[in-house]
Amino acid sequence: MEGGGQRPAPAVPSGQPLGDPLQLLLRRSREAKNCAYCPYSRFPVGAALLTASGEIFSGCNVENACYSLGVCAERTAIQKAISEGHTRFKAMAIARTELYVFSFDSDMGDFITPCGACRQVMREFGTDWDVYLTKADGTYIVKRLEELLPLSFGPEDLQKV
Amino acid sequence: MEGGGQRPAPAVPSGQPLGDPLQLLLRRSREAKNCAYCPYSRFPVGAALLTASGEIFSGCNVENACYSLGVCAERTAIQKAISEGHTRFKAMAIARTELYVFSFDSDMGDFITPCGACRQVMREFGTDWDVYLTKADGTYIVKRLEELLPLSFGPEDLQKV
Amino acid sequence: MEGGGQRPAPAVPSGQPLGDPLQLLLRRSREAKNCAYCPYSRFPVGAALLTASGEIFSGCNVENACYSLGVCAERTAIQKAISEGHTRFKAMAIARTELYVFSFDSDMGDFITPCGACRQVMREFGTDWDVYLTKADGTYIVKRLEELLPLSFGPEDLQKV
Amino acid sequence: MEGGGQRPAPAVPSGQPLGDPLQLLLRRSREAKNCAYCPYSRFPVGAALLTASGEIFSGCNVENACYSLGVCAERTAIQKAISEGHTRFKAMAIARTELYVFSFDSDMGDFITPCGACRQVMREFGTDWDVYLTKADGTYIVKRLEELLPLSFGPEDLQKV
Ligand SMILES: [Zn+2]
Ligand SMILES: [Zn+2]
Ligand SMILES: [Zn+2]
Ligand SMILES: [Zn+2]
Repeated sequence: MEGGGQRPAPAVPSGQPLGDPLQLLLRRSREAKNCAYCPYSRFPVGAALLTASGEIFSGCNVENACYSLGVCAERTAIQKAISEGHTRFKAMAIARTELYVFSFDSDMGDFITPCGACRQVMREFGTDWDVYLTKADGTYIVKRLEELLPLSFGPEDLQKV
Repeated sequence: MEGGGQRPAPAVPSGQPLGDPLQLLLRRSREAKNCAYCPYSRFPVGAALLTASGEIFSGCNVENACYSLGVCAERTAIQKAISEGHTRFKAMAIARTELYVFSFDSDMGDFITPCGACRQVMREFGTDWDVYLTKADGTYIVKRLEELLPLSFGPEDLQKV
Repeated sequence: MEGGGQRPAPAVPSGQPLGDPLQLLLRRSREAKNCAYCPYSRFPVGAALLTASGEIFSGCNVENACYSLGVCAERTAIQKAISEGHTRFKAMAIARTELYVFSFDSDMGDFITPCGACRQVMREFGTDWDVYLTKADGTYIVKRLEELLPLSFGPEDLQKV
Repeated sequence: MEGGGQRPAPAVPSGQPLGDPLQLLLRRSREAKNCAYCPYSRFPVGAALLTASGEIFSGCNVENACYSLGVCAERTAIQKAISEGHTRFKAMAIARTELYVFSFDSDMGDFITPCGACRQVMREFGTDWDVYLTKADGTYIVKRLEELLPLSFGPEDLQKV
């Protein structure tokens, strides 16, 4: 998929051979929110993970009364894929609920961005990732994982893998 | 499924109407180990989760170079099930690798038991669970979640759910 | 300190040679709540940890916008003590805010109990612990860690320590 | 303290009014490693946190047999400071053991860098941080937290603080 940059979602996705897989990934991330278990934050998040072999695994946040035992949507998607035998990934799309659509911050608007923990878990499986940060209206920003977690600590630093 | 107690795995599981679903759950937990990503502990663990509707979701441990960002097999299984729309569960089976089969400890032998974090994540979705702790030879112990996490902290304590 | 059981806080703690250290531990757990950083749960918790050498380390919950990156009061106390060179502990007292004083549940009233993650972190440093679960009115229940985390998974199970 | 860039540690730190506090912070991060509880990774890490009021809190990694319940040195330092009433911070220094001193990687050599989880926990308390990434020989790189966690998710995104 493409490099960094912001652009509106295509109004007519049909007829775009390259766009279709991406649109599917984005749609799956939006749909994944519907399964979120988030009674504490009331902040549903969805994620969709594209494997190297072209399969998509979706995830949602799963919270806990002991907040620290919850997990984000992105990590849920990765754990699902790993547990089904996939270890090589190409892209992650992240979507959040539309509740906060009126809060236009300075630069990032209401694009959802992954937390540092999720960036680290993605990085365990390589640095060659595209991360799609979406808004409720369908627009997105795409970043390389290295842009989101520069100078990262990884498996090589432990010299064990 | 049955209450607490230890017993050998049935030698002839066929022809046991009640036993078959349990044997399937146990087998799925053993198979789930094969997907474990555990380059740091080299300690593969598998889990299989039985939903109230009779479906089985399997999980494995997924580790990270930043050890604290890893996750256990049991939590992986729960997150998978939640992300597919299931929120009511009946039983969890846990299996570990056979590497340590010669370490016979006092009372528990080498039955694998869930960590406290996994007990808490299970407890988020109710206290009415059977937890099957297995050994490599197929024998198991079954415990109620309340036995494994007595006097538990849960959603009610936050009065938010 | 004493074994399990529930009792009212002594009205006049002075003049009790054995009671004074306990009263100090309980008081420190209550005071520790004042430092809690909990803008998300609005549920301040305090903990006080008694080391084998008689020192007390206090902790509070420290939450995060990414809920899973927060930490409980009990773990904060243990990490503080470890980082100051202590590795042997005798007792932990836990205190929560009085906000929910009117919610009288069946058996545990509004005694605060540790989450499974904290029980596991305590267990890393031995099973010979007293855990004081308190109420806002000063009464408490004391449990052994083994009662709170039976059949626990621990360092021996990895045969590495 | 200064902006980004790499430089050797000053050979003669005495007589440098501005350098002394930094040298103290770096030294404290190195010393903090000595308390690390890391029987699983055998990878001691130390951190030292400078508060807005000029105090230093040190931390080390504290691991667990359930790997995911461990915590890094940086988070230990922050939790300690919070639990002592500090919520505004200026700088963090991180030091690792010298075990791997012969592994000269391409760009970062063996400078230790914080994991994504620690970057997120730092970010909870503001984006105006200097992070000192050190090597065993005393040299360091200093980065702004924003450089280490760009486009970060934070408290504002939940509109709750
Ligand atoms: Zn996350
Ligand atoms: Zn676990
Ligand atoms: Zn806890
Ligand atoms: Zn870290």
